[in-house]
Amino acid sequence: MKSVAVVGTGLIGASIALALRECGFAGEIVGVDRSEAERSAALAAGAFTAVSADEAAVRGAEVIVLAVPVMAILDWMQRLAPVLGEGQVVTDVGSTKRAIVELARRLYNGGGSEIGSQARFLPGHPMAGKESGGAALAEAGLFRGAAWLFTPLPGEASALEMEWRRWVERFGAKVMELDAERHDEVCAWVSHLPQMVSTALAALLEETFAGDAEGLAMVQAIGGRALRETTRLGASPYSMWRDVALTNTEPVAATLLALEQRLANLRENLRTPELREEFAVANRFRAGIKV
Amino acid sequence: MKSVAVVGTGLIGASIALALRECGFAGEIVGVDRSEAERSAALAAGAFTAVSADEAAVRGAEVIVLAVPVMAILDWMQRLAPVLGEGQVVTDVGSTKRAIVELARRLYNGGGSEIGSQARFLPGHPMAGKESGGAALAEAGLFRGAAWLFTPLPGEASALEMEWRRWVERFGAKVMELDAERHDEVCAWVSHLPQMVSTALAALLEETFAGDAEGLAMVQAIGGRALRETTRLGASPYSMWRDVALTNTEPVAATLLALEQRLANLRENLRTPELREEFAVANRFRAGIKV
Repeated sequence: MKSVAVVGTGLIGASIALALRECGFAGEIVGVDRSEAERSAALAAGAFTAVSADEAAVRGAEVIVLAVPVMAILDWMQRLAPVLGEGQVVTDVGSTKRAIVELARRLYNGGGSEIGSQARFLPGHPMAGKESGGAALAEAGLFRGAAWLFTPLPGEASALEMEWRRWVERFGAKVMELDAERHDEVCAWVSHLPQMVSTALAALLEETFAGDAEGLAMVQAIGGRALRETTRLGASPYSMWRDVALTNTEPVAATLLALEQRLANLRENLRTPELREEFAVANRFRAGIKV
Repeated sequence: MKSVAVVGTGLIGASIALALRECGFAGEIVGVDRSEAERSAALAAGAFTAVSADEAAVRGAEVIVLAVPVMAILDWMQRLAPVLGEGQVVTDVGSTKRAIVELARRLYNGGGSEIGSQARFLPGHPMAGKESGGAALAEAGLFRGAAWLFTPLPGEASALEMEWRRWVERFGAKVMELDAERHDEVCAWVSHLPQMVSTALAALLEETFAGDAEGLAMVQAIGGRALRETTRLGASPYSMWRDVALTNTEPVAATLLALEQRLANLRENLRTPELREEFAVANRFRAGIKV
């Protein structure tokens, strides 16, 4: 691998560039981003050879990393398929994988459609991030110890795909492979549901106390670690989660409905021995998973 | 203040004893606990003059701190009222305050009932704790920076009550005063609701993945800080939260119902622009409260 292009030079894209450098990659890393501020921050981070607003800057790279939200990944996949060819790999970091894999099967790996490209597509998902984005917060160590999931298309991987996976392992990430449907279902439970609950809880507290200065001061004074941790994800940006909601609607809706029912059942049992059982089951989860 | 008795020598009770010592209290501190293991751990922590399983050890103290769950506090209040008198103060650390204040008005401060004691009662609530209890985890600094709420009975405080409040300030706690009803309502939002949500979420994940070793391994591998923080309170013990649920049922049920409706609304709007508004409101809460 001699050249990489990173589309989207925000937190994840710039961290990938920094991680490549830290792991000894000496080739070209071009960053493409529509935002001038992000391009400047990415250049300042020091890992990119060059940054550009122009799609053309991507075309010559051996590996193209799409590090933008899911809907933008789908757009880029369509724009790049006709102009890329054999010996090139496109990979991505999108939070949901089913829609991306479906499109990749049509557009890449010599896939069936009329614009089917000979370029390879390797769907990926690093489970890393921060509440705030931007290249200014990027770190070479962002992926250390984190899972990096791949949901490969059928067929044998190319040498360049295998090389990209080895770079990811050098980043310190734990590489796992699973199918896209299972990925989206498990992520709905362990990532998307906690996000939506935290957003709903923070929004509910805001609407309950916003007009009540004394109440809000009390919330601030009284709320401790419990409140801080359960509402922290409430700071997450809509821009990213809109695409998760759009491309994983049914699994997310199913987990939300299950939680609504669970909360209603708990509410109806606040004064019955069933509450003991609910705490016991929750205790088991915490004792067992050691996250 | 020359002598203190602490009923319940677990995390909070033993931390109060340690905090008193660290702040220079040189008088007697007797600890009363039914559990021999807790008594040993409390003695080992080093702050208690003596420990005992016997209620009689409490009677001679000037200040008696009830550091047990709420239902046990209510029991102790009834047992102590007939045997205590003028010049003594009973205070507590219970998580809900309405039931305690109602009983205190009848049984203390010369209150109306036939067993009304001349001893004073000062209802208190330190907003501090850990997921796990026990004197072994006690710390003198547990209350530093934490809120310590008082919901006083009507009438002027005695000199000894005022002295206890000054000790609490020396612990580094931020003392606040509010009425018991408001206390229970605000705590339902900022403490009891986050607890119940975390318990329900952890229990739901346990039941979804418990029988599925591969799934649980994936949850473990994939779940990051988001999962860890939103389910952390799932480790909390039923023994304490049962009493919160029993003595604050309506406010907790109201907050749960509100969250259920909020989640249902979010679920129905996963693909509409209303989701943007929900994230914006949640973002405002996080930007505003700085917990």
